[in-house]
Amino acid sequence: MAKLFIPGPIDVSKETFAAMSQTMIGHRGAEFEALYASTQPGLQALIGTSRPVFLSTSSAWGVMEAALKNLCQKKVLNLCCGAFSDKWNGVAKSMGLDQDKIQVEWGEAIDPAAVKAKLEEGGYDLVTLVHNETSTGVMNDLEGIARVVKSFEGVQLVVDTVSSLSVVPIEMDKLGIDVVLAGVQKALALPPGMAVFACSLDAIKRAETQPNRGYYFDLLEFEKAAPKNNTPSTPSISIIFGLQYILGEIEKEGLEARFARHAANNQMIHDWGAKHGFDNFAPEGRQSKSLTCFKTPEGFDQSTFIKHLKTDHGYAINGGYGKIKGLTFRISNMGNETQETMQELIDAMDQVLNTHTARS
Amino acid sequence: MAKLFIPGPIDVSKETFAAMSQTMIGHRGAEFEALYASTQPGLQALIGTSRPVFLSTSSAWGVMEAALKNLCQKKVLNLCCGAFSDKWNGVAKSMGLDQDKIQVEWGEAIDPAAVKAKLEEGGYDLVTLVHNETSTGVMNDLEGIARVVKSFEGVQLVVDTVSSLSVVPIEMDKLGIDVVLAGVQKALALPPGMAVFACSLDAIKRAETQPNRGYYFDLLEFEKAAPKNNTPSTPSISIIFGLQYILGEIEKEGLEARFARHAANNQMIHDWGAKHGFDNFAPEGRQSKSLTCFKTPEGFDQSTFIKHLKTDHGYAINGGYGKIKGLTFRISNMGNETQETMQELIDAMDQVLNTHTARS
Repeated sequence: MAKLFIPGPIDVSKETFAAMSQTMIGHRGAEFEALYASTQPGLQALIGTSRPVFLSTSSAWGVMEAALKNLCQKKVLNLCCGAFSDKWNGVAKSMGLDQDKIQVEWGEAIDPAAVKAKLEEGGYDLVTLVHNETSTGVMNDLEGIARVVKSFEGVQLVVDTVSSLSVVPIEMDKLGIDVVLAGVQKALALPPGMAVFACSLDAIKRAETQPNRGYYFDLLEFEKAAPKNNTPSTPSISIIFGLQYILGEIEKEGLEARFARHAANNQMIHDWGAKHGFDNFAPEGRQSKSLTCFKTPEGFDQSTFIKHLKTDHGYAINGGYGKIKGLTFRISNMGNETQETMQELIDAMDQVLNTHTARS
Repeated sequence: MAKLFIPGPIDVSKETFAAMSQTMIGHRGAEFEALYASTQPGLQALIGTSRPVFLSTSSAWGVMEAALKNLCQKKVLNLCCGAFSDKWNGVAKSMGLDQDKIQVEWGEAIDPAAVKAKLEEGGYDLVTLVHNETSTGVMNDLEGIARVVKSFEGVQLVVDTVSSLSVVPIEMDKLGIDVVLAGVQKALALPPGMAVFACSLDAIKRAETQPNRGYYFDLLEFEKAAPKNNTPSTPSISIIFGLQYILGEIEKEGLEARFARHAANNQMIHDWGAKHGFDNFAPEGRQSKSLTCFKTPEGFDQSTFIKHLKTDHGYAINGGYGKIKGLTFRISNMGNETQETMQELIDAMDQVLNTHTARS
């Protein structure tokens, strides 16, 4: 076992596990309704919406597929810049949807102007964006892309904020985003197993005209259950107890302070990398605040570094994802980390560099 | 808060929560693979299969819809005898599938002869059965129905064992069942949020010919991930830690002893009911071993009984589900309960009867 500084799941605190260990309750009664209701203000603040925030008993991919299923009636445009955003296009294909994509090299960000040019071709009614592409450490220009998409009548925007929610502000209502979704095992520092998401009224209206939506991921079922402070299917009650605890902690810390803490912790890793000649995989200005993706320098024995960091110091970082495995390595600063705990990681990484990889 | 004797979720033990509170691990590494692998022999024994048992990050309804999505190419026959089995037909309709049903009165069991007569009409390729209808306390004749279904070439059988798994033997391979599924918050006594299921090779073969299966509930994605001891989407790691613990407890107890314990605990509630003139809603011979569904006698103030049992004694039982709410009440004996803990419940119920409802 090692403390996780991989980009999700991340370290879950003892206090969170204690909250999750509360006596089990039924999910069709007043106790659960109160629990559900207690999560709404905090989630709405994180997502930037006055709409209800739904709790899905699934990982984020369930909701990512649900958005396609409920909202794509013509053709979806997937904005692809890494493993997860690319895969969203694969999911659209697996569903037999009419789809196209903008594909940029991994490590690059999506250009809003390219989105504009593509949408001008016509025929689209849905765009998918991964805000913070966890595989490459690129944070896309959400505001710029949302502005472009909203300028096209009848085109809706679905945004995966899996690894950016609670790290940077998300302004769903202000930007006119139609679906915002996230898993809970990233910056919210909960065990995986649940997703949260909100839908605009426009999204709900479109779903109403969509045939054969099924049941489990039917947006209208979530919309119907929300005023009753409940979920269509059996909820992941213990994780929701954990979520209630984390949202309480976020409220105590304050959103601005939380965003600033993540930015400062992220900067510490950037500074550490700069000191050792590790270059960012993501371009300046579009770098994630949740995690850092470094290019593996020529001759740097990344796997020895990661192995000793784990076995000698008990810290887990990640050696790159998918086709950039080995070529990059990633360090998360999400969740409950402080300057002190980030410094402990940095000290350990320095020791490993000095001892095993002759890099200083 | 009250100790749950409702038919799911049920009481989760301190030891289970402790197991769930183990240090978080990544889901794409050796530690998770070992965890996943450790669950397989125990789950295979419970389900009666040599096939891999998949872990779905969803409630059981996700898998119930997935079975329809992956396996129905012609027409599905839903066997309906209560809230959950009836709803499965509703889900088939919501997906736009060609469907029909056998509907019996709530409280009755499905007659294998009726299934035979219906399938003889032809055109079906899938049958859904809820083995233990949690809303009515009826346990259907799984063996008889499976024998009928398997006598029809090209008709596959999906069985929901949500509230029977680990209470009575399930013989998937022997009976030739194509999908067996269950949630973990019933007799396995885990928090809700995950489902387990196994698919026959015939089911996998049919899915291979099914277009537009999507991704999240694509049986082939589960089949592909299983040999790597992994899941297609991010797994509910803490619940799986809990599952590992529970399966260890089941192994220690022994399956036969577990089945016998549930039967004995269930009999205690039947005996208690008989003593007080509470009749079973389910017919003799088809009564669940997981829970007991009693008819509310004329003049018996059920809601006062349930309220005082909770507020005065800290035990929660359930006042009937769906359209038989109030007309019935249900008491679970699933999970970790012993003769002693069942007796504590019975003593408390007797006290409430004596004090508040003048029934002895």
